[in-house]
Amino acid sequence: MPTADFEERCRRSFGLQQFMATLGARLVSVHPGEVIIELPFSSHLAQQHGFLHAGAIASILDSACGYAALSLMSEGSAVLSVEYKINLMKPAAGSIFRATGKVLRSGKTLSVCTGTAEANQDGTWSAIAVMQATMIALKEQSALED
Amino acid sequence: MPTADFEERCRRSFGLQQFMATLGARLVSVHPGEVIIELPFSSHLAQQHGFLHAGAIASILDSACGYAALSLMSEGSAVLSVEYKINLMKPAAGSIFRATGKVLRSGKTLSVCTGTAEANQDGTWSAIAVMQATMIALKEQSALED
Amino acid sequence: MPTADFEERCRRSFGLQQFMATLGARLVSVHPGEVIIELPFSSHLAQQHGFLHAGAIASILDSACGYAALSLMSEGSAVLSVEYKINLMKPAAGSIFRATGKVLRSGKTLSVCTGTAEANQDGTWSAIAVMQATMIALKEQSALED
Amino acid sequence: MPTADFEERCRRSFGLQQFMATLGARLVSVHPGEVIIELPFSSHLAQQHGFLHAGAIASILDSACGYAALSLMSEGSAVLSVEYKINLMKPAAGSIFRATGKVLRSGKTLSVCTGTAEANQDGTWSAIAVMQATMIALKEQSALED
Repeated sequence: MPTADFEERCRRSFGLQQFMATLGARLVSVHPGEVIIELPFSSHLAQQHGFLHAGAIASILDSACGYAALSLMSEGSAVLSVEYKINLMKPAAGSIFRATGKVLRSGKTLSVCTGTAEANQDGTWSAIAVMQATMIALKEQSALED
Repeated sequence: MPTADFEERCRRSFGLQQFMATLGARLVSVHPGEVIIELPFSSHLAQQHGFLHAGAIASILDSACGYAALSLMSEGSAVLSVEYKINLMKPAAGSIFRATGKVLRSGKTLSVCTGTAEANQDGTWSAIAVMQATMIALKEQSALED
Repeated sequence: MPTADFEERCRRSFGLQQFMATLGARLVSVHPGEVIIELPFSSHLAQQHGFLHAGAIASILDSACGYAALSLMSEGSAVLSVEYKINLMKPAAGSIFRATGKVLRSGKTLSVCTGTAEANQDGTWSAIAVMQATMIALKEQSALED
Repeated sequence: MPTADFEERCRRSFGLQQFMATLGARLVSVHPGEVIIELPFSSHLAQQHGFLHAGAIASILDSACGYAALSLMSEGSAVLSVEYKINLMKPAAGSIFRATGKVLRSGKTLSVCTGTAEANQDGTWSAIAVMQATMIALKEQSALED
């Protein structure tokens, strides 16, 4: 069950991610178990053919999945990515990109999430990538370093 | 078998990736089937705990795997990532990071690669992430859009 | 677009998989882009705690994804798994298991699929595993051996 | 650090896996952090083209990775697969197959493993598949059901 301040916790953590600011990503919505992040295209994020770099797509998908997991975690938890897998279904061509992360299983320790990235080209959204991810709830930051 | 200009082809493509310049990544070495990319830590790449964001790690691993695959592809080929999976083994703490991509199987169409990311903290390198990736050789840029 | 005989092609190929017979798996339904396989629990498929072995779950998910992809492929195509990733969300406890494979992207060469495995315990179905997979269409059996 | 009875613990657990007996798999060697499992080809494990089914390959790789992780876990631990990803590099043609699982990171809770499957055809071994997996140490069997 999400805590009363689940949205605030996600937004605070997102605000601390300087890499999200570097990308130009924006936390659009936080619901219990579902988070949406948007990213406008910018040439400084391009790969060799001028499309959005897959690394940028993966980064917002990873964050959307991570915050979706965090939104269901108990008080005092921090979230870290254990692993993820991404399939790139189409070149990332578009003016704006949207990553939606959803929790499939929320456990005391591990959460399993699924994510979908869509591109908006000429007003139409289409799916360009999918992610399957494992997140871990940590009580303290040092816990991963066992 | 790599073409005579395999290194030049990889370096040219890397140079076109504006996202690599945004990250501050550098193509260190290109050998047939093995590519190394380095990335110095910078606060604009940090996640919420001040470590390097996993998205930055994944991006240089993905590129190292992609160029390792490209280094063995035939004349006129372009490379695109089909999918990858990354396990984050430790927080990305360090002053400089190194991604090594190696080809496990080089096929006419698909290549399978493995990547390892290491962090240098106080002069010592240690592995922080591993990747398993599939790359595709394209004759034309439009080929993925079938 | 599926061929007229898409279901027959999937059923014929499934019938040739002796491993599916060894497991006791049954091809329940074949629709364009979606295939369901069922597997009753049997003690000869158990892991060390008496649950269904993850390998059996992965096998029916892989086949469900593969035949979902084949159902949309053109005449004369064979399907092979390029790679897959599975998250095991709960112990596989139940009397019968069901794997549903769906196509997310159907390309001339590569298809991206998602799969969900459910267990029926005391009459209630619940999701126990998810898969994300890449399938390849081959004209000839030897094509993967490039 | 492995316990004194690490090999016995792995062999006892392997012996309880009825699915391994159904496949015909054999636990060849158990060293701290590295386990090898062999599987002779049998037509009851075949896929539609007569090769070994990918599900059988994945099953022995998964078990090899799991027991490699268990070999380093503390007294009283059980091991469960959290997730794995497999790339199938070649058709599984051969008379005998060998899966080697190795631990890349052994943590109190999570272990990261890598696995390689090889096929022996006419006396020569060649790699046919690679796996990257996450394993979890459980104190009690019920721990995953949080």
